[in-house]
Amino acid sequence: MGKLIIAGIGPGGEDHMTAACRDALEGADIIAGYTGYTALVKHLYPQKSYLETPMTGETERCREALKLAEGDRRVCLISSGDSGIYGMASLVFELAADYPAASIEVIPGVTAASSGGALLGAPLGHDFAVISLSDLLTPWEIIEKRLRMAAEGDFVICLYNPGSAGRPDHLRTACDILLETLPPGRVCGLARNIGRSGESSITTMLEDLGKTEVDMFTTVFIGSSRTRVVSGKMLTPRGYRNA
Amino acid sequence: MGKLIIAGIGPGGEDHMTAACRDALEGADIIAGYTGYTALVKHLYPQKSYLETPMTGETERCREALKLAEGDRRVCLISSGDSGIYGMASLVFELAADYPAASIEVIPGVTAASSGGALLGAPLGHDFAVISLSDLLTPWEIIEKRLRMAAEGDFVICLYNPGSAGRPDHLRTACDILLETLPPGRVCGLARNIGRSGESSITTMLEDLGKTEVDMFTTVFIGSSRTRVVSGKMLTPRGYRNA
Ligand SMILES: C[S@@+](CC[C@H](N)C(=O)[O-])C[C@H]1O[C@@H](n2cnc3c(N)ncnc32)[C@H](O)[C@@H]1O
Ligand SMILES: C[S@@+](CC[C@H](N)C(=O)[O-])C[C@H]1O[C@@H](n2cnc3c(N)ncnc32)[C@H](O)[C@@H]1O
Repeated sequence: MGKLIIAGIGPGGEDHMTAACRDALEGADIIAGYTGYTALVKHLYPQKSYLETPMTGETERCREALKLAEGDRRVCLISSGDSGIYGMASLVFELAADYPAASIEVIPGVTAASSGGALLGAPLGHDFAVISLSDLLTPWEIIEKRLRMAAEGDFVICLYNPGSAGRPDHLRTACDILLETLPPGRVCGLARNIGRSGESSITTMLEDLGKTEVDMFTTVFIGSSRTRVVSGKMLTPRGYRNA
Repeated sequence: MGKLIIAGIGPGGEDHMTAACRDALEGADIIAGYTGYTALVKHLYPQKSYLETPMTGETERCREALKLAEGDRRVCLISSGDSGIYGMASLVFELAADYPAASIEVIPGVTAASSGGALLGAPLGHDFAVISLSDLLTPWEIIEKRLRMAAEGDFVICLYNPGSAGRPDHLRTACDILLETLPPGRVCGLARNIGRSGESSITTMLEDLGKTEVDMFTTVFIGSSRTRVVSGKMLTPRGYRNA
């Protein structure tokens, strides 16, 4: 029997892969995914068949994986981080009705909010909102509204897809919106190339965040009113009273 | 040299533990944590020393772990899920100034939002807010405000600590607040005992969610305007346009 397993491989290196993800990769006949992600696992399983497609071929890739799984192939479709968070899982379920014989399983992974948070300290110690700044598939007005509501609610805010070559100004625009509600000195942090070569993290303030360079492998954290930096670590206390 | 590693073990079973977490447990002289969590790893490392404390002894447990790490002991302090999300990492950093010689590292894990999401399908396919309903350390007004802002922003909402014996009505109260903004038919999901015996998930509607029984091992998902149930799976599409 075929099967499609959608697995999150974590931020990059095999360190942050779960045992279930390793088992899924090992048991797969075919490993499918965006070329940038299959590159991260190929050295572990050089003998496997790979189904690789560029970033823009996502729908086709999912359809092909579903079709193979309807037959007798075990396909492991990988996402970075968690497969459910801006990953392939929801797209697969959107398309799944066309492939009724395919059995589907989702294997969760360590998302960039968690792995980036660990690098910075503990910025997500209390309630937080996760927002993608990519307007490829989302109208910018919706992103803007969510930024406003997250600031209003005093959430820690974690931004995915903060920028890319095609849209260098998104983070600056987002910061301008947040600065309507939040103070310029609000603590922020950036985690770059988590779990990969070039891994780094820095803390800064909201007024400077918009000028900071970000790319496809940056995750951004904007603190709540309670977030602070202690000995270089960004931390949001768990509570509003003393435990 | 001593060291304190704060590791997230994932939702329960060893399947969803990362390699880095396994290495940290294996390399530790002492494994520290809430009794309910150490119970999950004891069978893997029966020979280790354990420093176990009840849920309420968290501050003391962190101080003791820091003190041991200031000496020459390697201590692995575990949280369920991710160590940074309502876990021990932020508390340790709050206390760390008193133990300047302790070297500290955070190892991220698979949080309940990800593992519960995988069980349900892909509810977190787009922007989401994570809110704890525990008012042990947070005034209820702040929780209420965040629920309102998350609903207003059309976030998928993921609720941790939705209830316990001591506060059986929190989820119902939260649903009443959300129903001021969101329609009664809004898609919701619950994931219970993720990665443990008794693992289960169900989907329901917001008007019924408040009547659903929840406990300490339940994570609740409230869909955005775009979330739907397709063949029993809860899914939030990645975007607002067709890819
Ligand atoms: C399409 S989303 C995929 C998210 C992924 N599914 C997850 O759960 O982490 C891509 C965005 O995730 C974040 N990201 C993913 N991997 C990262 C890494 N290794 N370092 C820093 N940020 C990363 C960045 O914000 C990036 O723009
Ligand atoms: C104190 S918080 C700890 C969260 C944890 N650090 C994480 O990242 O998943 C406890 C809450 O997390 C959720 N949770 C943790 N483990 C769970 C599991 N195995 N099944 C369902 N929910 C879980 C529940 O909402 C629970 O009330």
